[in-house]
Amino acid sequence: MSELGASCPLPASSERVLLAHGGGGRLSQQLFEELFLPALRSPELEARHDGALLSAGGARLAFSTDAYVVDPLIFPGGDIGSLAVHGTVNDLAMCGARPRWLSAAFVLEEGLPLSTLRRVVASMGAAAAAAGVALVTGDTKVVDRGRGHGLYLTTSGVGVVEHGAAIGPQTVRAGDAILLSGDLGRHGIAIMATREGLEFETTIESDSAPVHAPVLALLEAGLEVHCLRDLTRGGLASALVEVAQAAGLGCALDGAQIPVEEDVQGACELLGLDPLQVANEGRFVCFLPAAQAERALEVLRKHPVSAGATAIGVVSSARPGLVELDTGFGSSRLLDMLSGEQLPRIC
Amino acid sequence: MSELGASCPLPASSERVLLAHGGGGRLSQQLFEELFLPALRSPELEARHDGALLSAGGARLAFSTDAYVVDPLIFPGGDIGSLAVHGTVNDLAMCGARPRWLSAAFVLEEGLPLSTLRRVVASMGAAAAAAGVALVTGDTKVVDRGRGHGLYLTTSGVGVVEHGAAIGPQTVRAGDAILLSGDLGRHGIAIMATREGLEFETTIESDSAPVHAPVLALLEAGLEVHCLRDLTRGGLASALVEVAQAAGLGCALDGAQIPVEEDVQGACELLGLDPLQVANEGRFVCFLPAAQAERALEVLRKHPVSAGATAIGVVSSARPGLVELDTGFGSSRLLDMLSGEQLPRIC
Repeated sequence: MSELGASCPLPASSERVLLAHGGGGRLSQQLFEELFLPALRSPELEARHDGALLSAGGARLAFSTDAYVVDPLIFPGGDIGSLAVHGTVNDLAMCGARPRWLSAAFVLEEGLPLSTLRRVVASMGAAAAAAGVALVTGDTKVVDRGRGHGLYLTTSGVGVVEHGAAIGPQTVRAGDAILLSGDLGRHGIAIMATREGLEFETTIESDSAPVHAPVLALLEAGLEVHCLRDLTRGGLASALVEVAQAAGLGCALDGAQIPVEEDVQGACELLGLDPLQVANEGRFVCFLPAAQAERALEVLRKHPVSAGATAIGVVSSARPGLVELDTGFGSSRLLDMLSGEQLPRIC
Repeated sequence: MSELGASCPLPASSERVLLAHGGGGRLSQQLFEELFLPALRSPELEARHDGALLSAGGARLAFSTDAYVVDPLIFPGGDIGSLAVHGTVNDLAMCGARPRWLSAAFVLEEGLPLSTLRRVVASMGAAAAAAGVALVTGDTKVVDRGRGHGLYLTTSGVGVVEHGAAIGPQTVRAGDAILLSGDLGRHGIAIMATREGLEFETTIESDSAPVHAPVLALLEAGLEVHCLRDLTRGGLASALVEVAQAAGLGCALDGAQIPVEEDVQGACELLGLDPLQVANEGRFVCFLPAAQAERALEVLRKHPVSAGATAIGVVSSARPGLVELDTGFGSSRLLDMLSGEQLPRIC
């Protein structure tokens, strides 16, 4: 804070990018709403979805992009290459699309061992093959030593929307069930533990994985999926607050139904983190009519990546824009979007 | 070089990324052929085009991506934002597609003034509007201070192919005319002059511009466009050598027909650069039957961005894979792909 004091806002010209602008929480949202959206306005950006829905010559497409700057490049359960494939595949899945084609753009730092690049690219290839998507176009740039951090990677993806459903917060209704596809917090804790050299009794592995198969199975089963959201930066809490705000409805969650593994819970306590705000890379929530919840859980549990799916709460019109967690024993708390930067460079 | 000497190749594990791997010349090609392609193989990557051609539900699409790491972020005639829009629009145009939708992924360095980001994003918005494309999806990550260089930007694009032509080196035939859309070298020299603080009598401005309008006009006029290539990293020489190698044919160029502005020529001489290897961002070559060259030039010259179009040579089967330049007075030289790194971080 300058000596002018808190009552005098700093002039705009001295504002600078903070790590928290990339954290997926409140400052990320503010940057999007106040800087990107006004300059780049389009109906698709205004939908504030994980990807854009497009109509091209009779085909309905989804289009999405994500930059990856994870540190370290290689971590238990994955690396920046597989993560970048899973992340974009999952963004397309959250649009209800079948992921088909990916692009990859590398920003390499001069001096990066080619063996590291080879490993990351091999991992990308394997992840793409496993997810049934093709890497069809790419680009490589090199920046001078000290101007990068090994490599940054941006993947974009195109998928085909094969159904007529309108998936998004605007379709969420009071009475919808909220399903969670599995346990929380493993990606964030795996990264944090590697970076900080923390040792736990067992190695916590990232949950990084493609989730399009169970999502497409829900749609193919004819279930009325209202909204899907993957739980990356900012975790479950940020995703649900975003949906609640966009839908103008509230979410009431039962904490006892939200799975967090014991070692992840322990690591979170040690590090002072809320597992509901920690990033995942293979987890999503699904909103659909409560009457279909049981059938949807059956479908999800048939897929290994969502075998641990649970119903964690319901949508209500009682407290619009708020997410309330019943923590047991009659107490409850409001969940908030991540504010500040909890775990920089998590993805 | 290690003390083992030149006769003993270094083990693979000590190989590292060099600036020249991002230069668009020989080392870039080697990285693609030896590292990326084997791990990520797909028919689209094997086509070695500026973008991928896809079929989705009856629609023919083009999909392309480029990372931008240009230094400085703002230069005479443009900035990283407009450059990223033009670059991806042009890659789609080189596939014969009408550019429609763009994504943008930002890697911001902590501490970047928000005023710089605002300027770049405003410039992206204006460039997209001018090119008739919509920015429909995006992402922002932030890296710690000293791990970036202000900002890196990756744009991907999707376009619609509205004609049936097969555009690519495989369609090039002996006897084809080679058309060049305008003068060479301004983008590279504008960047270099800014970076090195060079002063010329006039400010040399980048040629950065979208070129889809004249390309689509050629196709709409029913001209048989065989191949298109934009002249970015590595310049005219690298682009023509690539096409000649892929087509298994030779190119014979008339140097007198290749426009280079006097101040650009002077700067190249001062800096020891070959203007035919300097990057452009609003220039392309077009291969089509010689009998259609005059009509094609008429079409191109109606568009300001290609008002200076000329016929610079012909394709022949005489010297497969080689590009020969007639420099006048009976002398000639073979053009080579850029080797090493001439101008790092040009785009």
